[in-house]
Amino acid sequence: MSAQTQIFFASDNGSPVPPQVIRALEEANQGFAMGYGGDPLTASVVAQLRNLFEAPEAEVFLVGLGTAANALALSSLCQPFQTVFCTPEAHIHMDECNAPEFYTGGAKLTLAGQGDKMSATQLRTALEGEEIRGVHGPQRGPVSITNVTEAGNLYSLSEIREICDVAHDFGLPVHLDGARFANACVALGCSPAEMTWKSGVDVAVFGGTKNGLMGVEAVLFFDPAKARDFALRRKRGAQLYSKHRYLAAQMSAYLAGDLWHDLAMQANAAGAQLRAGLEARGIPLRNRDQANLVFFDLPRAQHRALMDLGVIYHFWGAEDGPADEVVTGRLVCDWSADRTRVDAFFAALDRVLG
Amino acid sequence: MSAQTQIFFASDNGSPVPPQVIRALEEANQGFAMGYGGDPLTASVVAQLRNLFEAPEAEVFLVGLGTAANALALSSLCQPFQTVFCTPEAHIHMDECNAPEFYTGGAKLTLAGQGDKMSATQLRTALEGEEIRGVHGPQRGPVSITNVTEAGNLYSLSEIREICDVAHDFGLPVHLDGARFANACVALGCSPAEMTWKSGVDVAVFGGTKNGLMGVEAVLFFDPAKARDFALRRKRGAQLYSKHRYLAAQMSAYLAGDLWHDLAMQANAAGAQLRAGLEARGIPLRNRDQANLVFFDLPRAQHRALMDLGVIYHFWGAEDGPADEVVTGRLVCDWSADRTRVDAFFAALDRVLG
Amino acid sequence: MSAQTQIFFASDNGSPVPPQVIRALEEANQGFAMGYGGDPLTASVVAQLRNLFEAPEAEVFLVGLGTAANALALSSLCQPFQTVFCTPEAHIHMDECNAPEFYTGGAKLTLAGQGDKMSATQLRTALEGEEIRGVHGPQRGPVSITNVTEAGNLYSLSEIREICDVAHDFGLPVHLDGARFANACVALGCSPAEMTWKSGVDVAVFGGTKNGLMGVEAVLFFDPAKARDFALRRKRGAQLYSKHRYLAAQMSAYLAGDLWHDLAMQANAAGAQLRAGLEARGIPLRNRDQANLVFFDLPRAQHRALMDLGVIYHFWGAEDGPADEVVTGRLVCDWSADRTRVDAFFAALDRVLG
Amino acid sequence: MSAQTQIFFASDNGSPVPPQVIRALEEANQGFAMGYGGDPLTASVVAQLRNLFEAPEAEVFLVGLGTAANALALSSLCQPFQTVFCTPEAHIHMDECNAPEFYTGGAKLTLAGQGDKMSATQLRTALEGEEIRGVHGPQRGPVSITNVTEAGNLYSLSEIREICDVAHDFGLPVHLDGARFANACVALGCSPAEMTWKSGVDVAVFGGTKNGLMGVEAVLFFDPAKARDFALRRKRGAQLYSKHRYLAAQMSAYLAGDLWHDLAMQANAAGAQLRAGLEARGIPLRNRDQANLVFFDLPRAQHRALMDLGVIYHFWGAEDGPADEVVTGRLVCDWSADRTRVDAFFAALDRVLG
Repeated sequence: MSAQTQIFFASDNGSPVPPQVIRALEEANQGFAMGYGGDPLTASVVAQLRNLFEAPEAEVFLVGLGTAANALALSSLCQPFQTVFCTPEAHIHMDECNAPEFYTGGAKLTLAGQGDKMSATQLRTALEGEEIRGVHGPQRGPVSITNVTEAGNLYSLSEIREICDVAHDFGLPVHLDGARFANACVALGCSPAEMTWKSGVDVAVFGGTKNGLMGVEAVLFFDPAKARDFALRRKRGAQLYSKHRYLAAQMSAYLAGDLWHDLAMQANAAGAQLRAGLEARGIPLRNRDQANLVFFDLPRAQHRALMDLGVIYHFWGAEDGPADEVVTGRLVCDWSADRTRVDAFFAALDRVLG
Repeated sequence: MSAQTQIFFASDNGSPVPPQVIRALEEANQGFAMGYGGDPLTASVVAQLRNLFEAPEAEVFLVGLGTAANALALSSLCQPFQTVFCTPEAHIHMDECNAPEFYTGGAKLTLAGQGDKMSATQLRTALEGEEIRGVHGPQRGPVSITNVTEAGNLYSLSEIREICDVAHDFGLPVHLDGARFANACVALGCSPAEMTWKSGVDVAVFGGTKNGLMGVEAVLFFDPAKARDFALRRKRGAQLYSKHRYLAAQMSAYLAGDLWHDLAMQANAAGAQLRAGLEARGIPLRNRDQANLVFFDLPRAQHRALMDLGVIYHFWGAEDGPADEVVTGRLVCDWSADRTRVDAFFAALDRVLG
Repeated sequence: MSAQTQIFFASDNGSPVPPQVIRALEEANQGFAMGYGGDPLTASVVAQLRNLFEAPEAEVFLVGLGTAANALALSSLCQPFQTVFCTPEAHIHMDECNAPEFYTGGAKLTLAGQGDKMSATQLRTALEGEEIRGVHGPQRGPVSITNVTEAGNLYSLSEIREICDVAHDFGLPVHLDGARFANACVALGCSPAEMTWKSGVDVAVFGGTKNGLMGVEAVLFFDPAKARDFALRRKRGAQLYSKHRYLAAQMSAYLAGDLWHDLAMQANAAGAQLRAGLEARGIPLRNRDQANLVFFDLPRAQHRALMDLGVIYHFWGAEDGPADEVVTGRLVCDWSADRTRVDAFFAALDRVLG
Repeated sequence: MSAQTQIFFASDNGSPVPPQVIRALEEANQGFAMGYGGDPLTASVVAQLRNLFEAPEAEVFLVGLGTAANALALSSLCQPFQTVFCTPEAHIHMDECNAPEFYTGGAKLTLAGQGDKMSATQLRTALEGEEIRGVHGPQRGPVSITNVTEAGNLYSLSEIREICDVAHDFGLPVHLDGARFANACVALGCSPAEMTWKSGVDVAVFGGTKNGLMGVEAVLFFDPAKARDFALRRKRGAQLYSKHRYLAAQMSAYLAGDLWHDLAMQANAAGAQLRAGLEARGIPLRNRDQANLVFFDLPRAQHRALMDLGVIYHFWGAEDGPADEVVTGRLVCDWSADRTRVDAFFAALDRVLG
């Protein structure tokens, strides 16, 4: 099946990047530039990010992958004898092949909350659970949350605030995995500052890769003191790009005219259309909140039938399980998902539901 | 001073990338692609690299930085209680902020040879030096050499062969840091296969970044068994790009019509012109061999005068040392260095020399 | 309160060591001995342990602490991109301040089962849970169980066999944390071989420290191939004692005349007496099985009253919580616990219960 | 050959321990004691060490091996992106199978000075050599020196002072590997305080194992702030002994009546007799200074002849090299070396020299 006829909802890493990104690379590809971030475009992007986040003192770093952004951020916040508190479904726990453990030098990830979210109360319980063993147990370390969560839900600003308050009660910093930062911002209708330091977040990843860039993430330390060794850890962790201007160029395009916001709006809008259409057809949804991810239940046979019709996405569990077993599928809307793609999905679905 | 008037010889990471690379990114930016290297362009690039290296069984991986390529390759070859044998000026030793130690889990780098090169005899001496302490000393691990070396010299094919023979006598694999692989190949007039597995090299980095790509390096394991855990270490080491096609696209452009070879020829040609011009003026050169790097001696005052005239490069030692102290400068020719730039350099130099 | 009048059930690390151990140290303290395990006493102890375990091919190592024994054993079995499967209450998870993560170079500990035990079925569920994410998730690694468990229960031989069968189905080795190995053997009425390799265990720790030694644990690899790098990891992990004979001497005393067995019998007998007396008084017990640990429930006020009467042990939860809240206390019988001490405990208890 | 007739100069880990140590273990083996250093004997030993070092604020820790003492101390002083400055023959570099790299999470060991010693000037050169590469090179970290050095020489108090001054100029802490601390103190005729903090040393290892204990080393942080995470690193590094009183007992015996000083005096006296006798016979010595180590040159055939007569020691190079090649032998005097043993050595030597 050709790309043209694909109804692609498999991931937000599968679509092309917007033309603005290519254009920015072309424009940056002029003249000489000092390497390793010493170029003026990088300086400009750092200034723009401080502006966007209303954080003139923030330390800002670019890296090329979300894995690196999160693992490096945590390594600056966490001693190897400590434990990072995250949810059972946190990407850093489930899907990084132990990168956080590697970058922190062997810290532990301790699970708080259920599924993809923790409440402030659940966090407190988890934190208190680590209290009573002196030097024997791992020591409490940073708290990490993800927004949009891995299961397509959202932390509200007040939920973030409450979590940060608990963490700070224990003297612990909070890290925000923002692989889908823009989608969360759009869904919450808030500013980047509101979703981060104004709610108590200490270090945030402002992800670009899942929202239209080839591969750039910004790490922002709102308290510069916490960033003290990040630059060295980035180099040692093989994430200091020599031709840094090409990272900066992408991020520059992403910031220009709030492209990041528009792309996420488009992805979220497609998500909302999918959600509405599934609900109208009485198909059970698995995530409560709405951003660019929709989790829905169908019998395995119908998932397979959809795929045979050119819809590309993942469903959970064994591919070859019982035909009538109901399993959850995940639809991811990238920035390029539009009405046409959504309509094509429902045309296929209606044929399957028959 | 504008970029146009810069006479840039500071690094091979400062120039723009060739238009073919931008075009390849544009072309790759069509339709959907599965992430993490599951796209057809990546498969094609792997096949092309096997072809180029005449190594149909080789395991091939792309990563985004030379630091990662070398540190990950070594981590697959080296246990943490072992030692990597490299030269005192090896990039992995001097300029990676302990990335090899990090990725290998704490292996040691043991110095063999002098300056930027080791001979087979010096390697044997270093290897025998680690022999006599049972479990007390670090154990012998992989040998790492760089070609073109950090100081602008070359290992000939027979030198590589002799080093590999010694390493293999001790049952140790050989890693080739090929940040300037293409420049070495061109200078030696040999094929990639001849410079690597045909001379005994077990794992090679085929660098693209310093020779015109935005940031792509290929790691080739000629013995697939040695690559067994590389894919997992790459993920854990935050070097598995989700939008892998953009790495593949760059490498694809690099391979098409042997662009890699043409770019290195151009850089080496500029290097030869610099070399000849310096020799003609009686200026002492510090590297014996000729590729795209030229190291030359001048009094500090003359280095500074050159810079005042718009020549951009590094010289060793304190910037503000004695004016008449002779110190070494490094000229790096990137793929875009041409006759005009070389002429501009000598015009400036002749003004300085008066 | 003097040691004489203490009714000590706080830990199996608080009592003196048996006189045989002191005597063995004295006897070993004659003449010269080569260091680092090159002495004849170490050779003899290794031979005796092979004999005891009916495993003439086993590789045997002595270390000075249980932390080291377990963390080093796991580091030989586990790659840093893998995960160790253990229970939520496993000592290696809860009480080692991330030593396993440190020694393995950043492996993850994944929880299987509930509380202190996993069933074969629960293990299979956990193992299958790690299956579906390719290079993204951590890879399956060794399975670790503890016998006697941390909560005073036992794995039967058939439970061990079933767990090992599941692990081996997945190609994974099984590690047995035997901090209380002897107590488990005695309680199960089985031989060391039966509790280990005859049931499928690949690597076992034969703990001496909790059962009467000053600080010696033996690590046994029943498949010598799995031990290949242990000696180097032991040295690098700062656990190769130069005056190794003093470790060997302790272990020698422990093996002579099956002292290890007698000491554990005594501890288990005291445990049985505690258990019976508590049951007779209608006090709820928290562990199902009987070895040398007894967990029992009392209102906090009564725990405190017991302590005021000279009984030394731990209870869970805050020391200063509500007086009438029922919390669990832990009684540990070391090798020196006897009828007199048990009687003293019940005399105190009966005063408290009124 | 029986131990009685051995003329043992192979190591200071081969002799028995003094009877005081056994007696102290017996005495400590009474009653119950809280584990992990919570016992009164540990508290007393800590107080005594603070007294001995005239450092009432010092943080003091006991561990069981020199490897651990040094590697843990360095891990508290050094970030993983830094480098430890030590000599080419430093034990931490040559003979710990990468334990320092392991405990520091991958720091580098950078060599300063020549052989077994560095001068303040050489240190400054090495420190300045790490200056010019920004985030690219490893960052400067702690300085580590050994006294008595590995090659049997001494740092004088003024040499230590000068080295510490240079290190402190760069804001770096100084670590003293004191495996033979007592022998150095005796040879220099100074107090422990003079050899450490009064000369600028920040962290010192007061070694007991090589000077008569079974296995105990004290680590002293003269600036308690630098010790902040040592207790956690000790636990995670598998060096927190549960039955800590047996470490404390040994150290207590070592301190009582300045036994440590008497033992080192005896060892040094034997060293002086060896030295004098060798000089009298015109045999070339390799170390300039005198403590308990003597390095001397003989043809290999004469080394072998000495060994055939029952003298036990090591010589450098292959055992089976040319008979007439002159190689260096090492004689180590432990605390129990006496006139009789020295006389037996010279009787054998005179037979060999004929």
